[in-house]
Amino acid sequence: MTQVQTHEDPRTAMQVYGQRARTAARQVRKAADKAKAAALRAMADLIEERGEQLKQQNALDLEAARKNGLADALIDRLAITDKTLLSMATGLRQIAAMPDPVGSLGPTTTRPNGMRVAQMRVPLGVIGIIYESRPNVTIDAAALCLKSGNATILRGGSEAFHSNQALGGIIQEGLARAGLPQHAVQVVDTTDRAAVGAMVTMTEYIDVIVPRGGKGLIERLSREATVPLIKHLDGNCHVYLDKAADPVKAHDVTVNAKTYRYGICGTMETLLVHADVAGTLLPPIAATLVSKGVELRGCERTRAILPTALPATEEDWETEYLAPILAIRVVDDIDQAMEHIERYSSQHTESIITEDLAAATRFQREVDSSSVYVNLPTCFADGFEYGLGAEIGISTNRLHARGPVGLEGLTTMKWVLTGEGQLRG
Amino acid sequence: MTQVQTHEDPRTAMQVYGQRARTAARQVRKAADKAKAAALRAMADLIEERGEQLKQQNALDLEAARKNGLADALIDRLAITDKTLLSMATGLRQIAAMPDPVGSLGPTTTRPNGMRVAQMRVPLGVIGIIYESRPNVTIDAAALCLKSGNATILRGGSEAFHSNQALGGIIQEGLARAGLPQHAVQVVDTTDRAAVGAMVTMTEYIDVIVPRGGKGLIERLSREATVPLIKHLDGNCHVYLDKAADPVKAHDVTVNAKTYRYGICGTMETLLVHADVAGTLLPPIAATLVSKGVELRGCERTRAILPTALPATEEDWETEYLAPILAIRVVDDIDQAMEHIERYSSQHTESIITEDLAAATRFQREVDSSSVYVNLPTCFADGFEYGLGAEIGISTNRLHARGPVGLEGLTTMKWVLTGEGQLRG
Repeated sequence: MTQVQTHEDPRTAMQVYGQRARTAARQVRKAADKAKAAALRAMADLIEERGEQLKQQNALDLEAARKNGLADALIDRLAITDKTLLSMATGLRQIAAMPDPVGSLGPTTTRPNGMRVAQMRVPLGVIGIIYESRPNVTIDAAALCLKSGNATILRGGSEAFHSNQALGGIIQEGLARAGLPQHAVQVVDTTDRAAVGAMVTMTEYIDVIVPRGGKGLIERLSREATVPLIKHLDGNCHVYLDKAADPVKAHDVTVNAKTYRYGICGTMETLLVHADVAGTLLPPIAATLVSKGVELRGCERTRAILPTALPATEEDWETEYLAPILAIRVVDDIDQAMEHIERYSSQHTESIITEDLAAATRFQREVDSSSVYVNLPTCFADGFEYGLGAEIGISTNRLHARGPVGLEGLTTMKWVLTGEGQLRG
Repeated sequence: MTQVQTHEDPRTAMQVYGQRARTAARQVRKAADKAKAAALRAMADLIEERGEQLKQQNALDLEAARKNGLADALIDRLAITDKTLLSMATGLRQIAAMPDPVGSLGPTTTRPNGMRVAQMRVPLGVIGIIYESRPNVTIDAAALCLKSGNATILRGGSEAFHSNQALGGIIQEGLARAGLPQHAVQVVDTTDRAAVGAMVTMTEYIDVIVPRGGKGLIERLSREATVPLIKHLDGNCHVYLDKAADPVKAHDVTVNAKTYRYGICGTMETLLVHADVAGTLLPPIAATLVSKGVELRGCERTRAILPTALPATEEDWETEYLAPILAIRVVDDIDQAMEHIERYSSQHTESIITEDLAAATRFQREVDSSSVYVNLPTCFADGFEYGLGAEIGISTNRLHARGPVGLEGLTTMKWVLTGEGQLRG
């Protein structure tokens, strides 16, 4: 791949990335799906052929990470294993096989004067991805952005530098094999932090940035960015056990919502329970959760039912634990449950467990989160589970994409009107 | 209406508007369409009942405008006449009668595990409107935002202060008559410019701002805003007469695109003509335009055909005249036409005149503007003409709404999932 000289000022270097991306975007937005799919399949083949080389480059990152005393969990995320390789190649082939979103037309209406009005799906343009440790994001994000006809600038964490550069080489070779412009996907080859500052303010060259990483990263970028971000800050998700909850569903869904994985953004962090059923529903749920090592923290009414639960404070309602800890609050009714959610939720994902249609309908209509469930665990919050095929991220924004963002979220709709010389006025 | 004390610091005052709007937004997003429509019809009735009072308040603004030597065109826009009153009342009743976008569900898909996935349309939240002179924007914008379940903060120009305050009083009385929260629509009662600066940075209280006004206003707001703007800077619109253009359509559409109204953003500013047909198409078009008082400026090849045309410079290709002036360029082919558009267009609206399906298809797919037409004049760029019922503005943004923005552009889609206790993993 063409190197941008790293001794340059990183802002100047990023301008070069930006200009190249803008030029490539004009070409790739018109690319046939055949070419885009061929490039993605070529990348999958190359990942399989060059697995050993990728692992060698990855080993350099792992070695540095160990020297720098990175936490084991972070080193795990950084590692490229046979499983990672397989998952990247499979992901590429799946995205290659998805229908091309570009150029599809929405419903056409005919106006009284006979002209036809429709909306056509088109790429956003240039997408910036700013991410931490996991090198597989390089492949997943590049693939989704390319399939949706966008040019991409990828800026991974410095701890994955060698891995990302190696993957970037494979991506560009895949693009070349399919006759697509080399700069349709660029992996930034500087680890200077100023490059990130440049990306989030390059409104002339970057149309949207998808940050992938911890809350610290997102908060920092949000403060600096003038380029729009597709993002969520955190996932303080709630499950509400309604008065009319089925006890088996209440138990199973609650346990699943907390324990499927502690570290993902869709994990339930606070359980709300209707006062009338708290006494019967909470003890079996608590027993299972405690047996799985989950620490319980409750309001006073909860602790009257579960005396071993620790007292919950205001801070607990606000916290995304990402850990085996659960806050529990007994509420008077669905209104108090929704008030609690309105106040503390991060508008990511909330769920009601109920057999009462009116309660389910109210909850789904009135809770103002990006995903609102009935009788399902919040851990379903994932583009693949929604049928989007793959997701670039989850958004709690109100404009543009909200919830899991798949290929469509990386596109926009322009208007196309067709007539036979109709005139106005 | 409750007054915010104007002796306060305007930033503090705007925080109060913001807090009230956020509270009202929680209520109005759940409001039944019956109540929203009743409020809009009550406002229409009040405008009819209080026409004389409105005109009296408007007279204060007109008097000040004349004293301050405002241009006649601006005074015209400022004036509330019987026609303006009728148009506001009719607009309100039309918006009242439109289908409520809130709560409508997109297609539902059933996942392999049986859970149902759909998207539900919900309000954006709090919308800020920043606008100049025309007081009817107060009514139109308030009506669209209310119908789509949003709370609104309206900040009009100081030259329309008395008119806007009077209309604000009518809006709040209409809200009260329908039992809706008073602060669902607030008309800012300070003319301090710092109020605008506060609005565009109040990300905690305002979800999106729709600026309505000249390029100067939009540029200034774009520089300062951290709240997203739904906007377009200008409308440098193109018509391309293809080799396969029908001569009658070419003539009539071109003349209509330029002369329907000189001052609207959809007016054609540059005409591109295929070299093979320029000699036959241009003379009759030029004759009609000149007879209507349009000044022609052309490239060298144009001037070889139309010797009376003035020479066009680089600046002409870049200019939105908003005046009876037209730039004309002869191009080699459709590729050169699209290159010209790619370089100079403001991505507002472009049109091709052709009988060739392949050319029409290519133009519509490849031109990267928010609206792309075939055989239609660019002056159709208007939400009402597209069938949106009414528009809050036109967007050349890539994220969220692109092109004319109606009720749907003032909403977002959340995900609603319904199951029977399905678990993950």
